[in-house]
Amino acid sequence: MKQLDGSVTAPKGFRASGVVAQIKNLKSTKKDCALIVSDAPAAVAGVFTTNQVQAAPVLWTRQVCAGKQARAVFANSGNANACTGDRGLADSEATAQRVAAGLGFAPGEVCVMSTGVIGVPLPMDRIANGVDLSIAALSPEGGPDAARAIMTTDTVPKEKAIEIEVEGGVIRLGAIAKGAGMISPNMATMLCVVTTDAAIDAEPLQALLRECAEMTFNCICVDNDMSTNDTMLCLANGLSGVPRLEPGSANYAAFANALKEISLYMAHALVRDGEGATKFVEIRVEGADSAADAKRIAKSIAASQLCKTAFFGQDPNWGRIACAAGYAGVGFSADKLCVWLDDLEVVHNGLPTPFEEADAAARMQPRDLLIRVAVGGGPGKALFWTSDLSHDYVTINADYRT
Amino acid sequence: MKQLDGSVTAPKGFRASGVVAQIKNLKSTKKDCALIVSDAPAAVAGVFTTNQVQAAPVLWTRQVCAGKQARAVFANSGNANACTGDRGLADSEATAQRVAAGLGFAPGEVCVMSTGVIGVPLPMDRIANGVDLSIAALSPEGGPDAARAIMTTDTVPKEKAIEIEVEGGVIRLGAIAKGAGMISPNMATMLCVVTTDAAIDAEPLQALLRECAEMTFNCICVDNDMSTNDTMLCLANGLSGVPRLEPGSANYAAFANALKEISLYMAHALVRDGEGATKFVEIRVEGADSAADAKRIAKSIAASQLCKTAFFGQDPNWGRIACAAGYAGVGFSADKLCVWLDDLEVVHNGLPTPFEEADAAARMQPRDLLIRVAVGGGPGKALFWTSDLSHDYVTINADYRT
Repeated sequence: MKQLDGSVTAPKGFRASGVVAQIKNLKSTKKDCALIVSDAPAAVAGVFTTNQVQAAPVLWTRQVCAGKQARAVFANSGNANACTGDRGLADSEATAQRVAAGLGFAPGEVCVMSTGVIGVPLPMDRIANGVDLSIAALSPEGGPDAARAIMTTDTVPKEKAIEIEVEGGVIRLGAIAKGAGMISPNMATMLCVVTTDAAIDAEPLQALLRECAEMTFNCICVDNDMSTNDTMLCLANGLSGVPRLEPGSANYAAFANALKEISLYMAHALVRDGEGATKFVEIRVEGADSAADAKRIAKSIAASQLCKTAFFGQDPNWGRIACAAGYAGVGFSADKLCVWLDDLEVVHNGLPTPFEEADAAARMQPRDLLIRVAVGGGPGKALFWTSDLSHDYVTINADYRT
Repeated sequence: MKQLDGSVTAPKGFRASGVVAQIKNLKSTKKDCALIVSDAPAAVAGVFTTNQVQAAPVLWTRQVCAGKQARAVFANSGNANACTGDRGLADSEATAQRVAAGLGFAPGEVCVMSTGVIGVPLPMDRIANGVDLSIAALSPEGGPDAARAIMTTDTVPKEKAIEIEVEGGVIRLGAIAKGAGMISPNMATMLCVVTTDAAIDAEPLQALLRECAEMTFNCICVDNDMSTNDTMLCLANGLSGVPRLEPGSANYAAFANALKEISLYMAHALVRDGEGATKFVEIRVEGADSAADAKRIAKSIAASQLCKTAFFGQDPNWGRIACAAGYAGVGFSADKLCVWLDDLEVVHNGLPTPFEEADAAARMQPRDLLIRVAVGGGPGKALFWTSDLSHDYVTINADYRT
């Protein structure tokens, strides 16, 4: 697997752009409209928020994915177009229509994504301007601009591109994502677009994407709040020249692996840039009856305010970890519980080991922490990633209408 | 219903005490051992944490409650006696035995409760001293001392006593409780003891207590972390002289109502004194298909980090409330969603109303906030209470080993 530059424009036949259209307000000077275009019709797959309150662009883009083919993704930051009713739906459709008209596509081939404030109608004059500017700015080197245009409270853009050698040639995958708050499991993610020049049908692509989200974006947590706008899309335009990927083939497996790799990188990048985050914490749970049980325990620790403040305070407070494991709603014997901070076992079969306090404290100093929990002898295991809960998180989110 | 002084010693035939026994460490000067004694055998009922990791005193006191009769409750703060294995169980039993020996009771009539740090064995020499001192200090005016002795990060004691007139005389109820962190629904509470001089059998008392916890302590949330030690006990010694309460009678209903009243007061007191809390927020949900659905939605809002930081920031950020309602895992039509801040409707049928921003902001200024959410025309409604998420919460919990 080789690293490439250019994120979503690294695969063959993709152009992108990111432009300033002052979507949030007329004082805004940051890039806030992104466009990604495939030069050939691409198979498309998507996974979306499971929130009952779904934003208009989510409803629109679900329809596009149902049609299995897409040519473009237009995304704006600064306004989520959520809780905007029929007007919001009309605005998402009008946005897709303007992109389609400008590029000669059908509106049903244009995905839209929005992120930002909830409950404010899209400023359609400025969106129209954003569409026009972003079409004019399309470039085969435009991936990084697009990554920046979708940022909100993110402090760094999230982007990656990789290349894998397979039988018959080379396949490239590129991705951009955003999201630093309202990040919780059981969703797709805030926004993530993966492009690839692999040739693959929409159905297997959809299956792969769903499986991939389950192991990556659905295993992260910043604040346990699931957004109304979470969307992860994958566009596969087939321009690599590598024969169509057939389920069961070695090439298919290699592609699935690469898709998971790039998704995991993006998911981790969201946690690392979580609002106010000073720590990146991997939670490993093993010995549960099933993988689902292990995931529930891991999520319980990952979402615990008391664990997250202990991570922030660099406090090896294993009692909070044991407690959060215990209320996950999963049955296990407390006298089988073991907890490790990195490689230091601090709880063995339900009882604290005679570890040195200084030794445990040292394990909490690095930016990247590893918490391992075993709850018995079962086969179920899971990985989960979370950030800490810091003063900056409170400051960022207690600001009047962030 | 009349207010009385004296908390758990207000009902007839109860004595209590609170003493300093330096349980946490030898520098400690706060009262940390409490004892409550009934002059006559009392019917006892208890509800306990549902955490898989249950502290030794929880396991011991469950057994006492199974025996239906108790004479005393001994409680220590400064050490939770949790994750202490067989030694912890032996220590809880030894504590009960020492109380029993000193007072001439059977050990199986003595409930024990512990709260404080997890994973450290009880200092049994100091516990023994605490038992002896608290027996010596027993007094019919000792309720307030007992309330102070069970505090940990609490900033104020939680205590209340009331009197109700019923046919045949007067019944008194008194309560003390503690808890400011690790407070989450689906539990009993941190620690709460209710005393009453009503005569009632253990079975109906247990049923009433469970129903009562469901509507009070199980409807509050500070940090969504469920403790390993949560215990709520009720001792009824029958010394009021009022005939035994029979299910279905008017007296029984009046007692049930008083028990709910005093429990609700204590539950609210925990939220008001939640770690770092600057707000007390009542969440009212209506129009759901069932009361259980309404409670899930209310809890989702109550536990949302983004809602809680918005409460702290006094930000009328209804988008976060709508979002948290949406991910509660309960189906409803987003276009039926209505949200009120106090009496100001800010969302009507899924769309923001044309409210004045200043008007909405004013609704977020009081210490006590009311958030009302309607999700349709169903009969299900629920009440839930939560605190905000402040800088002080992070400071309190990021301190090394609080």
